[in-house]
Amino acid sequence: MKKLINDPLKVADELIDGLVEAYDGDCVKVGTRSIIKTEIPEGKVALLIGGGSGHEPIYHGLVGTNIADGAACGDIFAAPPPDIVLEATSAVSRGKGVLYLYGNYAGDVMNFDIGAELSSEEGIEVKTVLITDDVCSAPAKSKDQRRGIAGLVLIVKMVGAASQSVESLDELERIAKLTVLQTRSVGVSMSPGSIPATGKPTFEIDEALIGLGMGIHGEPGVSEIPMTTADDLTPQMLDLIFKDFADDSDVDELKEGDEILLFVNSLGATTMMECLICLRKAKEYLNERGILVYDTIVGPLVTCQEMTGISFSVTKLNDELKGYWDLPCESLCYTKL
Amino acid sequence: MKKLINDPLKVADELIDGLVEAYDGDCVKVGTRSIIKTEIPEGKVALLIGGGSGHEPIYHGLVGTNIADGAACGDIFAAPPPDIVLEATSAVSRGKGVLYLYGNYAGDVMNFDIGAELSSEEGIEVKTVLITDDVCSAPAKSKDQRRGIAGLVLIVKMVGAASQSVESLDELERIAKLTVLQTRSVGVSMSPGSIPATGKPTFEIDEALIGLGMGIHGEPGVSEIPMTTADDLTPQMLDLIFKDFADDSDVDELKEGDEILLFVNSLGATTMMECLICLRKAKEYLNERGILVYDTIVGPLVTCQEMTGISFSVTKLNDELKGYWDLPCESLCYTKL
Repeated sequence: MKKLINDPLKVADELIDGLVEAYDGDCVKVGTRSIIKTEIPEGKVALLIGGGSGHEPIYHGLVGTNIADGAACGDIFAAPPPDIVLEATSAVSRGKGVLYLYGNYAGDVMNFDIGAELSSEEGIEVKTVLITDDVCSAPAKSKDQRRGIAGLVLIVKMVGAASQSVESLDELERIAKLTVLQTRSVGVSMSPGSIPATGKPTFEIDEALIGLGMGIHGEPGVSEIPMTTADDLTPQMLDLIFKDFADDSDVDELKEGDEILLFVNSLGATTMMECLICLRKAKEYLNERGILVYDTIVGPLVTCQEMTGISFSVTKLNDELKGYWDLPCESLCYTKL
Repeated sequence: MKKLINDPLKVADELIDGLVEAYDGDCVKVGTRSIIKTEIPEGKVALLIGGGSGHEPIYHGLVGTNIADGAACGDIFAAPPPDIVLEATSAVSRGKGVLYLYGNYAGDVMNFDIGAELSSEEGIEVKTVLITDDVCSAPAKSKDQRRGIAGLVLIVKMVGAASQSVESLDELERIAKLTVLQTRSVGVSMSPGSIPATGKPTFEIDEALIGLGMGIHGEPGVSEIPMTTADDLTPQMLDLIFKDFADDSDVDELKEGDEILLFVNSLGATTMMECLICLRKAKEYLNERGILVYDTIVGPLVTCQEMTGISFSVTKLNDELKGYWDLPCESLCYTKL
């Protein structure tokens, strides 16, 4: 794999400098390695996201107008250390508290939790909501143990919208929990990305197989199935999402007349052509079930270097969430008019 | 290469159906294989783009709000045939004429020209402006022979904005010619994408080499150079753009205080991480020369399947072009608040 980089050990720092440049002044780098909106109004409840680098344009590209206020950035596929979390927290805080919203990975949880303690010592109130949308990583009854994957784009967009007008950190926490509860994803992978520092692939999978439910670094999912067609795979993936809404007593099942957001993500090297072919089948399948797609997004937004694979994410909408979705936003990762 | 498709011979049709679905009602499929905005006001000068499929999210993803009115879509890497061009022309026409704006490839020119003749027979006035931004495909004195590459995103965005308010087809033609004149790109490739119908790569290049100036299908450029770092390659590419503005007597050279748009494109499998690292160096290099970047865009917008490589595109702005850039727009390929 020929990669256009410089020192393989400096890619995380250099890409973050590039990310700040991509914002043309709307965001700045703060401290060691955090990206923060240039203008955050006094008295705003702040939204801080973050996680490992190497998945661009997430996580750190979700900072922007009417979306996240800042991101604490880790090294490639590594959590941001507590001092970076603290720097980012201090930079976004405007006196009304800070909500941490990030994917449920052990390293991230440990580091953000210490960051929250350090922030608390500095008088900043912090609450945390974990993103746990990957239905294949644990059964519905243990859904708090699930990983966060591509559904985070939908979640951060809506919580970021809500954060523009909520009165309190408690209220933003409530909305974030609701948004996570209503959002479910299923992913597959066909081949790995590589770790820039070593050139080594992040996992191995047989040439003739697809990892059904595999995580965004190659974490195990439901099963390995033979490579198949877009039209065969798409309903299998959506069925896992349907089943999960049905299995989980905390949410209503997905039924005729329900409105959803639909996000088809590419993990990197899977082409937009393939995503669109799968989207075509997904819409047909959802139409047959009377599910109404309120808005569709498609593209390589949650990636793992040149990994191939896709995921489907679904948010079941209500009037409240729809209002948050409708607000225009702008960021490197996702912009909506 | 494991691809998530169905019948390899139907990918162009299926991806276009998916593309229409991605628009959630804002665009419809017309005739055999064209995508058209659902609402085009009566009396509007229409903007029609198009070209081969397989490069998603361009070309056909550039249809939308304040951008192109429609796209005539060809098969994978093939021009749209004249009957499709005619269908698309009839569908976008609102009585004030239609501007064709597309990349300068022989097959596209032949087919769009016949489509223009057929449209003329039906009483629709058509003018054509070719996109010729690839400076490595011909010298400045023969710039009309150049290919169109990633600069088309900047060009279509601005001409689409202008088309919302121009009074005449002649005026839109003038603006399109100005926008093309002011926009220059340089691309490189490290490895090919594959043709879905055959699984064969679109070209070959040695593992240790970069194709400097190579086109988006692997067309020859300036030279093959040894694989190098992001920080070594970026100035070489920008120097070719600087030199081209200086060599061309039809434009002013790029000089201190000039404002530009900067677009860093990935050809597909090159990661956003790499694009951001190159962007970081590009901004540093432009800053040293006193060039002011008015707006930056970065991402895999002009692709050739899972090809690796990047391009830089630059539009030298004046107040008129800046006005067109500033207008918000929304499309699958590019959205700006």
